[in-house]
Amino acid sequence: MYTQEDHDYMNMALAEAKKSLFISNPNPRVGCVIVKNNQVIGFGHTQAAGSDHAEIVALKDAKAKGFDVSGSTVYVTLEPCCHHGRTPPCTDALINAKVATVIAAMTDPNPLVAAQGLEKLRIAGIEVRCGLLEKEASELNIGFIQRMTQGKPWVRLKIAASLDGKTALHNGVSQWITSSDARHDGHMWRARACCILTGIGTVKEDNPQLNVRDIETPRQPLRVLIDSFLEVPLDAKILDESIGGHTVVVCGQVDAEHFEKMSQALREKNVTLVALPDASNSKGKVDLPALFKYLAEKLHINEVHVEAGFKLNGSLIREGCVDELLIYMAPKLLGDAVGMANLPSLSTLDDVKTWDLIDHVSVGDNLRIRLKKK
Amino acid sequence: MYTQEDHDYMNMALAEAKKSLFISNPNPRVGCVIVKNNQVIGFGHTQAAGSDHAEIVALKDAKAKGFDVSGSTVYVTLEPCCHHGRTPPCTDALINAKVATVIAAMTDPNPLVAAQGLEKLRIAGIEVRCGLLEKEASELNIGFIQRMTQGKPWVRLKIAASLDGKTALHNGVSQWITSSDARHDGHMWRARACCILTGIGTVKEDNPQLNVRDIETPRQPLRVLIDSFLEVPLDAKILDESIGGHTVVVCGQVDAEHFEKMSQALREKNVTLVALPDASNSKGKVDLPALFKYLAEKLHINEVHVEAGFKLNGSLIREGCVDELLIYMAPKLLGDAVGMANLPSLSTLDDVKTWDLIDHVSVGDNLRIRLKKK
Repeated sequence: MYTQEDHDYMNMALAEAKKSLFISNPNPRVGCVIVKNNQVIGFGHTQAAGSDHAEIVALKDAKAKGFDVSGSTVYVTLEPCCHHGRTPPCTDALINAKVATVIAAMTDPNPLVAAQGLEKLRIAGIEVRCGLLEKEASELNIGFIQRMTQGKPWVRLKIAASLDGKTALHNGVSQWITSSDARHDGHMWRARACCILTGIGTVKEDNPQLNVRDIETPRQPLRVLIDSFLEVPLDAKILDESIGGHTVVVCGQVDAEHFEKMSQALREKNVTLVALPDASNSKGKVDLPALFKYLAEKLHINEVHVEAGFKLNGSLIREGCVDELLIYMAPKLLGDAVGMANLPSLSTLDDVKTWDLIDHVSVGDNLRIRLKKK
Repeated sequence: MYTQEDHDYMNMALAEAKKSLFISNPNPRVGCVIVKNNQVIGFGHTQAAGSDHAEIVALKDAKAKGFDVSGSTVYVTLEPCCHHGRTPPCTDALINAKVATVIAAMTDPNPLVAAQGLEKLRIAGIEVRCGLLEKEASELNIGFIQRMTQGKPWVRLKIAASLDGKTALHNGVSQWITSSDARHDGHMWRARACCILTGIGTVKEDNPQLNVRDIETPRQPLRVLIDSFLEVPLDAKILDESIGGHTVVVCGQVDAEHFEKMSQALREKNVTLVALPDASNSKGKVDLPALFKYLAEKLHINEVHVEAGFKLNGSLIREGCVDELLIYMAPKLLGDAVGMANLPSLSTLDDVKTWDLIDHVSVGDNLRIRLKKK
């Protein structure tokens, strides 16, 4: 059904889409390639939210180069939108441009679109096909798809550990177990996330900035701090505006007076404070699934990048909130030290959850292992 | 200096050598390919100790096929021997056969040979070159080389663990953390070893057989049990002759009466008992470096395959006895459980030893990571 050329052009469109990784959040990463007479006459990728989608960029690109797009074939990694969001529908632009064919990698999981975009194009007489390199395209928007279909973000938990699974010494020292190459790679994953999430334990222990520094990025992800009892020191680096981006502190149901005091102090630092329901089984502890629902629904968070410690890692894993593990492993043995996650002692191996190995690659002299929830 | 053909033929010789992996111990794994007029006229690999070396097998192979080897080029992965061991010198056979050229991958690290074999060939008028694919050839005989040059075997420590570095539950359950594919792969490494080493803790906990079962092999490696205080139950599987091969129990300086009693009981089971000096810092505990010296010098052990538990793993690593880590990692998190090795708590990351990553491969849905001492 699809030719080798179709594959080649869609791969070009996917390569375009990857250029949106650090840019388009919370919009999906989309790439578009316009082909006429076996020649690429325009291409583009989705810009920052509120700016042009990939199709519009590609149409403008072709026009700017003096090409007539009528009768062309458009390869796009996601079904063109048909609704008025922050920008007008891409379907209208394609119809007006009189393109002949649209080949999409996948339908839009957004219930507001859900194949209606393709249908609108068909009704306008455009030949439409869908499903070419769908797996590759969906990987690029794994968080957007999860938010649209399940109302929660894709949660990627990053762990930097030794071979024997240790993430810090007992005295708290953890800088640095993994190599600078691994940390550089880690910043790529930070940069593509909608938000970076951590816990109060990590802030007290390491006082991290949790911004993107090691690579260039046009935007800083939001930072989310889970601080059930509102203990964050006001001079914590994560609250400092000068590191770029914005920080949200999430607390549980705390004492009204303390909440009021902290609320005002954080407002002065331009930090948002949100109180969420307590977990039903633990007074004062933030309900984690409720947090992720909040992040998806209210803050349009597609991908959450977690960099936390033993306790929060354990809570997130125990409560089934983690979709992906991103583990950097240094070729060292640390022995008696702090482990990856606070998980209970088991009495049998029968019920142990198995993860799906996505890939394992060398990053400098460290190893990066990615796994997905089964 | 070497042509593409030279590389191709030496790679064939290396492939031959690999056929000796489970066979030739304690002799090195060697392969030989004889080429005349761009045709392979004979090839072979080293047989069980006391039988033919690779060169002799290849010469006989050529002869059996009716070829005249005079004037041929011999590719061999290790310098031909020039001394009378259990078999006559290969150099004599090559000289008598009137071969024109010998290309060796590396010189023999055996001080009894040490380039004298090549010299003997040169004196006889044979063109000799050495060093083609040396790295590949030396990897094959990493244990033999270490024994010859340092008087100790290559110690490979196998660990089956979860992602978070756990090797057993606190109740002792460890069967099975890794998959059957990983265990199958593990038996390949068992089969190539001269001996499989374990500790009394593992025998008491798991009562393993520690023989090669998952794959076919013409020989069972020796089993070595470190049992400092001679506590092994006489019905332990590792002492049972019916599992094939032979077992050596190594103890420290124990009470004479107990030693005598155990000595007789083990003799009846055809098990060898050896008393070694105690470690200087620990009364009754076997001196591990002395053990490895003993294994190399007295038992001609090239490669030791260790399958032990938390305590012995820790002792071996702390005392610098481990040359290679062979880690099978299952895509699971076990949480609060038994770790890889009993290593002390550190106060700084500065002095942590870094291992060299050799490779990492998927074995079924498990990950195998190999590392070498720096």
